[in-house]
Amino acid sequence: MSQFYSGKSLKSLNISQLNTLCENLRQKIMSTVLKNGGHLSSNLGAIELTVALHYVFDLPQDKVVFDVGHQCYAHKLLSGREDAFDTLRKKGGISGFPKREESEFDCYNTGHAGTSVSAALGIAKARDVAGKDFNVIAVIGDGSFNNGLIYEAFNSLRLLNTNILVVLNDNGMSISPTVGSMHEYLELLSESSEHIAKRNKHANIFDRFGFKYDGVYDGNNLEQLIAKLTEIKERLKHESVILHIITKKGKGYEFCEENPEATHGISISSSDSVSTEYSKVLGDTLCRLAESDGRIVAVTAAMTSSLGLGDFFEKYPQRSVDVGICEEHATILCSSMATEGLKPYYAVYSTFLQRSFDEILIDICSQNLSVTMCIDRAGVSGADGETHQGVFDLSFLSMIPNLTIAVPKDVNEFKEMLKFSVGFNGPLAIRYPKDGKRIFKVSTSLEYGKWEKLTESGLDAVIIACGERAITESLIASQILKESNVAVEVINARFVKPLDREMLEGIEHKHIITVEDNVLSGGLGSLVNTFYADKNKAIKNFAYPDEFISHGAVSELMRDYGITGESIAEYIVNALR
Amino acid sequence: MSQFYSGKSLKSLNISQLNTLCENLRQKIMSTVLKNGGHLSSNLGAIELTVALHYVFDLPQDKVVFDVGHQCYAHKLLSGREDAFDTLRKKGGISGFPKREESEFDCYNTGHAGTSVSAALGIAKARDVAGKDFNVIAVIGDGSFNNGLIYEAFNSLRLLNTNILVVLNDNGMSISPTVGSMHEYLELLSESSEHIAKRNKHANIFDRFGFKYDGVYDGNNLEQLIAKLTEIKERLKHESVILHIITKKGKGYEFCEENPEATHGISISSSDSVSTEYSKVLGDTLCRLAESDGRIVAVTAAMTSSLGLGDFFEKYPQRSVDVGICEEHATILCSSMATEGLKPYYAVYSTFLQRSFDEILIDICSQNLSVTMCIDRAGVSGADGETHQGVFDLSFLSMIPNLTIAVPKDVNEFKEMLKFSVGFNGPLAIRYPKDGKRIFKVSTSLEYGKWEKLTESGLDAVIIACGERAITESLIASQILKESNVAVEVINARFVKPLDREMLEGIEHKHIITVEDNVLSGGLGSLVNTFYADKNKAIKNFAYPDEFISHGAVSELMRDYGITGESIAEYIVNALR
Repeated sequence: MSQFYSGKSLKSLNISQLNTLCENLRQKIMSTVLKNGGHLSSNLGAIELTVALHYVFDLPQDKVVFDVGHQCYAHKLLSGREDAFDTLRKKGGISGFPKREESEFDCYNTGHAGTSVSAALGIAKARDVAGKDFNVIAVIGDGSFNNGLIYEAFNSLRLLNTNILVVLNDNGMSISPTVGSMHEYLELLSESSEHIAKRNKHANIFDRFGFKYDGVYDGNNLEQLIAKLTEIKERLKHESVILHIITKKGKGYEFCEENPEATHGISISSSDSVSTEYSKVLGDTLCRLAESDGRIVAVTAAMTSSLGLGDFFEKYPQRSVDVGICEEHATILCSSMATEGLKPYYAVYSTFLQRSFDEILIDICSQNLSVTMCIDRAGVSGADGETHQGVFDLSFLSMIPNLTIAVPKDVNEFKEMLKFSVGFNGPLAIRYPKDGKRIFKVSTSLEYGKWEKLTESGLDAVIIACGERAITESLIASQILKESNVAVEVINARFVKPLDREMLEGIEHKHIITVEDNVLSGGLGSLVNTFYADKNKAIKNFAYPDEFISHGAVSELMRDYGITGESIAEYIVNALR
Repeated sequence: MSQFYSGKSLKSLNISQLNTLCENLRQKIMSTVLKNGGHLSSNLGAIELTVALHYVFDLPQDKVVFDVGHQCYAHKLLSGREDAFDTLRKKGGISGFPKREESEFDCYNTGHAGTSVSAALGIAKARDVAGKDFNVIAVIGDGSFNNGLIYEAFNSLRLLNTNILVVLNDNGMSISPTVGSMHEYLELLSESSEHIAKRNKHANIFDRFGFKYDGVYDGNNLEQLIAKLTEIKERLKHESVILHIITKKGKGYEFCEENPEATHGISISSSDSVSTEYSKVLGDTLCRLAESDGRIVAVTAAMTSSLGLGDFFEKYPQRSVDVGICEEHATILCSSMATEGLKPYYAVYSTFLQRSFDEILIDICSQNLSVTMCIDRAGVSGADGETHQGVFDLSFLSMIPNLTIAVPKDVNEFKEMLKFSVGFNGPLAIRYPKDGKRIFKVSTSLEYGKWEKLTESGLDAVIIACGERAITESLIASQILKESNVAVEVINARFVKPLDREMLEGIEHKHIITVEDNVLSGGLGSLVNTFYADKNKAIKNFAYPDEFISHGAVSELMRDYGITGESIAEYIVNALR
């Protein structure tokens, strides 16, 4: 029998039973995350809220949109996914984020910050147009609250003339501690409840947009939450409400409560050994380069530590900016600082860089400014799934004029690229995965736009690959083939843009293979295909296909999509037949 | 001798002389725009402000960032570009937007809305890091003020610990009248100056972010502006200020004052005849389709009329949403409305769609939702230049899984595609230029993913083209070649994604040519190259190269980049030799 009540059975519980349910959820989430990895502290903090929402509202008729969605584990357990919960974030198992495909209780897929209020408004507007009757709730943390999308959504509430509930789940964190004036404002609102008069006076920043502000409440007090949500449910018939609650990130586990940033996401180490994380190399190298170059500044959007820049921020506070979850603003800060002769390094995850596409194109590249983008978690990123795969960056970057794209084969080459970047004029993107697992023996000095041969000349075929993962698989292929006396040349395409035209022109092999950790369309393979378009060459591309890639371990995903030494070797053997 | 004083000579004028200067600027701008086309009303409204900024501040040491930049004409005339002003927006002439390449008075290039405050903050931060001393000013209209970037920038003011001046140039318009709660708030602030107490109470929405709010003043009163800016210049040493002024869009010309939307931008008709604008077809067709389909809703971001949706908005107010200049929010509204079974049409200019790249990918496409994007001004858009060319959309869209991309050959086919879209499940993008100039004789019925042969089979070469412009040039090429007895087949690639694989597989021509009104990287040609990568075919691509395309007439730009029937014919003749 199920440990976690849902629907009617949940609604029949008394407060004491509901509190027990919360404890059971807490245990289950804790034990599963420690086993499978995933988001921990934020889920522990949101348990009471989730139980209260399920208790007061009528899900799935009523719709809850979870911002980012990383706090939805209790929601999954309360909506019929208990049995599958052990498969959390495992290939073929349930996702760590809301998924419409998984359950009708997940009404909107999220993954990137700040979309929930817009989505809730759209769902509510659609309800109104269709003359239906249900409630729509956005659950959003204070970190996401920094994102400009929230302002755009708030600004259109009156215009859309509809009613929603926004639950502002305020834990003072956005992976890194939340920054910015809105956060200070929220803190002001959260001051001792004695200052109600003062609070109400300030609350008008939300009222201004048409919301009725209601706060601040203890978001880990189930009884109070249920009473408040029950009252608000009635009010939603005629008004939109912001419910401001304070929750404790990591609630219930002392270590998490005290280390919310470190326990925000738990990684489970894979079987492969990690020699160095690229983020560490970024931090160490940038610290050293900044010693002798006062132009260097570092910019991040709420992920300073996970990008390796903790030390830099400590050592150079005047030359460090974390703007919170504001990728577009961060990008323009970099481009404008560059107009004044500074040398900005914008560190960001590949998937979140997507938010800045227009600013990269217009602000950085059309002005041809010397901004270096350090793009972490490129390639498949693993267990977070569709919304977090870094497999699009080569494509959306390679089409942008003026931009140079470098892809290091290992952490040592990454270090060289960072050194190279200091003297380089113009926009530069360097993309790399999280883990540095190998150091390659060959290491020739870095030259702009020039590729590197990693093996002796092999007459049978040539493999052009970029990035540690693709090069690793390509060298495995060449090893396998060597045993069958097939001689394959492996080239490190360390600049994806510009291509090394001279080297490409010199290739006389009949069989050309490209390998990359990116989608085919617009990536390295695609660029090579276009280079050879009018030259009557046959090329085989190994890359991710034109589909969204679900969650799974990196090595599993690479195997599934055939980006392995074995597949490459097999292709070449067949081609040579 | 120059009519327009600048630098020291401007500073030596008295108020009466400065007012005369304003009138001269007004005359010059009016006469030039009526000749060359360009932004009219917004420039007329901002003349006094521009003169006051040049008078009070020390440009170019002090930096002024113009949001969007369409109101910079007086600034150009006052910074040594008077002689070149007749070439405004002409190929090789001066740009209609700020351009660093043009003058040191242009400190930051703009074109897309909402970037000015971020850029001003970045410049100010760089000044502080370098220990320099100058003033930084952002000039922004109330329309841009809706954009989320403003909030992200405001939110980080205290964090950056720097001082800037934001001049909020409030004319109640953002091409279309400004919408949303922020606009209502600004209106409240602008109420009769008797309510100063009330105003000051409300002003705290800006104070909250660390700005000192100062307003409301008549932005067309030069004397008052100069006094106020002189005072603020001192205050900028220790604080950041928002100066809220009200200006009259179109100031000085009755017709413009009364028709600010119609005179926002003036187009100069080209020599070619325009049969129908695509926007008109969108509006008419969508109105008709919506009569029998209650699911259809239309969403725009501040450009309802120019996208052809004026009538739709009037006829179906409940099913119409203009969110102001909030492209990302608009995109999520569409995706979330689609989750509830509505059929949203998001109409947008190609260049502004870039802002929603992440939301198209994550919100619409990874959820595989039935949103139709109607992408206007695709291809080179002409006189607005680099920041407005719609030459990237095929590239940044074709890499996105689940998305179908349709490109009509003429307005009739566009109509068919819109009809097709109603019954289509999944994300759909339809891209088209502003002007429909030709109706092609051949017109076969539309089938998902199927291309169309526009000419009889021609054995010598095959041209695969998409969109009215590229197909026009391809047919011109085939006509030219026919006269030399060269038989060329022209294919209408009306779906760029998915490609018509069957038709591509059937092509046995030795010479394959692709033609498109998009950059090569990631566009139709690139997709065809990759389709044939392992098939030993030689393909020649006609497309825009990997560079930013400056302003000029559409036909001039197409000629410059060799996307003409003559060039295509010439290539084929040479290839056949």
